[in-house]
Amino acid sequence: MPVPAPTLYPPFNIVRLSHVEYRVTDLAASRAFYVDTLGLQVTTEDNDRIYLRAMEERGHHCIVLVQADVAEVGVLGFKLYDEPDLDRAADFFAQRDLPVEWVERPHMGRTLRTRDPWGIPLEFYVKMDRLEPIHQKYRLYNGVKPLRIDHFNMFSSDVDASVAFYSEIGFRVTEYTEDDESKRLWAAWMHRKGGVHDVAFTNGTGPRLHHTAFWVPTPLNIIDLLDLMSTTGYVANIERGPGRHGISNAFFLYVRDPDGHRIEIYCSDYQTVDPDLEPIRWSLTDPQRQTLWGAPAPRSWFEEGSLFEGITPKESALKAQPIIAP
Amino acid sequence: MPVPAPTLYPPFNIVRLSHVEYRVTDLAASRAFYVDTLGLQVTTEDNDRIYLRAMEERGHHCIVLVQADVAEVGVLGFKLYDEPDLDRAADFFAQRDLPVEWVERPHMGRTLRTRDPWGIPLEFYVKMDRLEPIHQKYRLYNGVKPLRIDHFNMFSSDVDASVAFYSEIGFRVTEYTEDDESKRLWAAWMHRKGGVHDVAFTNGTGPRLHHTAFWVPTPLNIIDLLDLMSTTGYVANIERGPGRHGISNAFFLYVRDPDGHRIEIYCSDYQTVDPDLEPIRWSLTDPQRQTLWGAPAPRSWFEEGSLFEGITPKESALKAQPIIAP
Amino acid sequence: MPVPAPTLYPPFNIVRLSHVEYRVTDLAASRAFYVDTLGLQVTTEDNDRIYLRAMEERGHHCIVLVQADVAEVGVLGFKLYDEPDLDRAADFFAQRDLPVEWVERPHMGRTLRTRDPWGIPLEFYVKMDRLEPIHQKYRLYNGVKPLRIDHFNMFSSDVDASVAFYSEIGFRVTEYTEDDESKRLWAAWMHRKGGVHDVAFTNGTGPRLHHTAFWVPTPLNIIDLLDLMSTTGYVANIERGPGRHGISNAFFLYVRDPDGHRIEIYCSDYQTVDPDLEPIRWSLTDPQRQTLWGAPAPRSWFEEGSLFEGITPKESALKAQPIIAP
Amino acid sequence: MPVPAPTLYPPFNIVRLSHVEYRVTDLAASRAFYVDTLGLQVTTEDNDRIYLRAMEERGHHCIVLVQADVAEVGVLGFKLYDEPDLDRAADFFAQRDLPVEWVERPHMGRTLRTRDPWGIPLEFYVKMDRLEPIHQKYRLYNGVKPLRIDHFNMFSSDVDASVAFYSEIGFRVTEYTEDDESKRLWAAWMHRKGGVHDVAFTNGTGPRLHHTAFWVPTPLNIIDLLDLMSTTGYVANIERGPGRHGISNAFFLYVRDPDGHRIEIYCSDYQTVDPDLEPIRWSLTDPQRQTLWGAPAPRSWFEEGSLFEGITPKESALKAQPIIAP
Repeated sequence: MPVPAPTLYPPFNIVRLSHVEYRVTDLAASRAFYVDTLGLQVTTEDNDRIYLRAMEERGHHCIVLVQADVAEVGVLGFKLYDEPDLDRAADFFAQRDLPVEWVERPHMGRTLRTRDPWGIPLEFYVKMDRLEPIHQKYRLYNGVKPLRIDHFNMFSSDVDASVAFYSEIGFRVTEYTEDDESKRLWAAWMHRKGGVHDVAFTNGTGPRLHHTAFWVPTPLNIIDLLDLMSTTGYVANIERGPGRHGISNAFFLYVRDPDGHRIEIYCSDYQTVDPDLEPIRWSLTDPQRQTLWGAPAPRSWFEEGSLFEGITPKESALKAQPIIAP
Repeated sequence: MPVPAPTLYPPFNIVRLSHVEYRVTDLAASRAFYVDTLGLQVTTEDNDRIYLRAMEERGHHCIVLVQADVAEVGVLGFKLYDEPDLDRAADFFAQRDLPVEWVERPHMGRTLRTRDPWGIPLEFYVKMDRLEPIHQKYRLYNGVKPLRIDHFNMFSSDVDASVAFYSEIGFRVTEYTEDDESKRLWAAWMHRKGGVHDVAFTNGTGPRLHHTAFWVPTPLNIIDLLDLMSTTGYVANIERGPGRHGISNAFFLYVRDPDGHRIEIYCSDYQTVDPDLEPIRWSLTDPQRQTLWGAPAPRSWFEEGSLFEGITPKESALKAQPIIAP
Repeated sequence: MPVPAPTLYPPFNIVRLSHVEYRVTDLAASRAFYVDTLGLQVTTEDNDRIYLRAMEERGHHCIVLVQADVAEVGVLGFKLYDEPDLDRAADFFAQRDLPVEWVERPHMGRTLRTRDPWGIPLEFYVKMDRLEPIHQKYRLYNGVKPLRIDHFNMFSSDVDASVAFYSEIGFRVTEYTEDDESKRLWAAWMHRKGGVHDVAFTNGTGPRLHHTAFWVPTPLNIIDLLDLMSTTGYVANIERGPGRHGISNAFFLYVRDPDGHRIEIYCSDYQTVDPDLEPIRWSLTDPQRQTLWGAPAPRSWFEEGSLFEGITPKESALKAQPIIAP
Repeated sequence: MPVPAPTLYPPFNIVRLSHVEYRVTDLAASRAFYVDTLGLQVTTEDNDRIYLRAMEERGHHCIVLVQADVAEVGVLGFKLYDEPDLDRAADFFAQRDLPVEWVERPHMGRTLRTRDPWGIPLEFYVKMDRLEPIHQKYRLYNGVKPLRIDHFNMFSSDVDASVAFYSEIGFRVTEYTEDDESKRLWAAWMHRKGGVHDVAFTNGTGPRLHHTAFWVPTPLNIIDLLDLMSTTGYVANIERGPGRHGISNAFFLYVRDPDGHRIEIYCSDYQTVDPDLEPIRWSLTDPQRQTLWGAPAPRSWFEEGSLFEGITPKESALKAQPIIAP
């Protein structure tokens, strides 16, 4: 098996992915997309910045939209279990000569800012402002009824190496795609919180953010979003789907925000809390891994992604070709 | 408006579409598809012929599968309101020099066999064996949980003429696609029973049967069928969808039977019983008429269809091009 | 069979039920209920009167809310097929010494106002203002996403007689409940438009309106309404359900408006266009006819209803007892 | 707050609830219920014992049905994280003078058998036979399409004490019901795996097992089960629901197996992995905690439960009354 054995006792305890900072070029247009169309809830906003949460989240934000000149990704945030984990994380990154900085973040406690070995900007924290539950304020549900942030998916120019690193810090592989020839990883899905993934890596020019995903109640909410987007001026923002992934078995839809940041709407994957859960292998030549129902993804889905702040991505050396819609 | 005004008092009263005879080259393979996969119920069968009904139907059959050397369509059946309508129908077709034959059909009463002006084989009847209700025998529900036959869609080499003829016998246009240049009809949807259509005509080499559609309870049943087909050897039989049609507003999926006969799974169109319902016009250049969500249909969907018994189709003179998936 | 044979050629052609006038004591409260909670769309309104339509309707209104001192029902409206049907209807009611009056109704053409033999106020018309389609303006969908008015259900003090009269004017019985002892009808469901009913009659002090029903896309929309009502101050307005009726096989919920008028939310009954459709008989002693899943209805559901303008209801002579929730 | 602070570093690491042994008096009748009606999959069976798993589970079993003279519960099973956790668990129970026994269990590795302080039989293990995934073998899905075991709910004669004990071994309270007068706990929901609960305790004669719950994809699967049970002879086995719990926000249905063991069908609660998740308090006088939509539960639901092997339950001293359906 080309994936590392899970690290049962990682150096620090990551609870789950937490939030993403998207830099956007027209904050009002982004608000119309994320709030009025997807249905995320505004928790705080000013002229430069909008904080959003999904319906069942009690942390202050899962997305920060920041007005900027260039559309890119500021940081990916992760919640740690307890305060000592923060210090252990700082030690871990410092020992690897990766940047370690304690930063001030509104609405968050002690926050460690660092980067992974390929430059992906990461921040770790334990405490974020906790808000009143709104999951039973049904008047507020709107759009696709997003319940929670589910995962980040990233392009990596060396998926084997990315998986090795994230495995070392405790992420466990649930499914992966292997190139039958080279026996190298084409893609892998890795979790902390007990679903199919908190993070995934796909072969390509990287690092770039492929997408951020939100969990919704049922496939019918995804159909509702398609109906809404296709009759409110967003039909060109629908990129792929709806469909069921072979990998993860989730029902999905991919849409693009006004700057092209890709959002996946996602539901119905499976529980993965068992530490001895066996990863599922897929061949790169199997079109059903992408879409169980057989339809390949469009070229844009394989090629386009969001840049991370301050990092120039590199081409991947792995040149195997996925199956692209003709 | 390029569509004829509805004929309020047609020469005979057609209640609804009723049944189709599919000639198939491997009856066992067709049984596996229609019964074990789609979930239609067998009402009578022998070595040569299988009669099927859907879950809420009380008539004896909506599909007859007939073992044959060549895959084609034997006949399209329609139920008339009352016995005198049968005689009026015979008069109508005879007056137009179309074939009129009274035939014996198992499980059916007096049956008139004829053809439309382009040779489509039609049969009309009033009485068919009525069976016990099974719509509350929930143990029997299977596959996509088909509730009833919904409509026939046919390629026509002259949609304007087809619409004029079927309008004369009482079908009312609910929606249509017009070529903006020539002002000719590209396609039209016509009903008797109070939904968007019992019959539809689409420009193309015709007459051929494009598809027969079945009504199912909700979009989730269609997702269930996709999951089932894609994991039981039928992934290549999934042709188009799932999606929502702009025209009809229905949620749809197109699949192909083992002989290539096309079946649409369909739900959630709207009620059309008002005789003054205004037809909805769509431009041939609007991709949302096909799929509200923007995805074009594949080439096979525009080009392939089932031949009718005894008829060689003709090319259409209308050469405008639909939008085809690249 | 205790139900009359269907009248194949009725004296005038009723297309479908069309609209109801509800007199309400607090128009603003009613607007909050029907518009903001159920999701019906306002087509015209002033200080005294609000006209509403459901999402797939193109006629001007299916409900008229009228500010009044007393909550009651002003009239039940039905659409006829063609202008001569209006005159035939006038003749029919005049011959039976029932009131016949031609009235002016905003947004409607020639309108015949009459009463049935027990005093239920009825109006018939052919033309109502036709509005632009909104069924694909998905931004407007709200509340339970009501698609169309589906049926009226009335208390009758003599269901056998009511059924005989409505059968004479073309309504066809689809299902009925019989008292095993007396062989009298306890209730009956009768249609014109091809569903299980346009009108139903239930034994009880009558005539009174038991409820008006609206068709919605799927059971999940009904669950959404329950979630919304129970968290916006309407939990006490939820009377019965959700459940599946044995009779009609429909998924249902009953709610009460601020004046106590009862609204059913309803989906997934079956097609009944065949004129030879055999009515389904249910015994009064079978609890599954009310709720297939076995739960009996509450007492209020059997006893409470809306008065019709100008009519004092009479007790029923049929004293058999339904099964009431303890 | 009457609930203990979460134990961040418990004495041993419980991953999740795992399985239950039900002793049943007619194994064939139980098989018809669990396999043919609920849709659980048989993994091993002989004349005395049937092992079942749900569709997304890869462990060998979540239910063991054992033919017995008396219907009761043999044991509740929990999966631990790693082998050392087993020894730490043995130490923990031994130190409290609770029984500690290493037992042989087919299909399971080293297994610790013990009891909680009130006698509930528990077993802990790390390794169970892992089976091939079947979650994408859609032909196998049946009944309610059960995906995984979700939680155990137990009657406790002293909920405060039960919660204190289970909190000490790492379960974290997500929601609880408090008696406003006595400030004592009426009920509490506690998790390990990241949902609303792995175990819950409700005031009553205890210890007894109130129910075992299974997670299903959507509310529509629960409606499907209701339709199936009500037309295959199980209508009297439907005890409560469908509805949405205020507590947990889950959509639910309670059914009884042929021996009266109660099974909850459950979906759509929320993610609880944050260690600082604030428990939600409900008042015992709030009927919406039971059913958000307002309907109270029947008396049987409050009073009946399954006995645990070898233990005589005791009455609770807390006499506050829940709201019971009249």
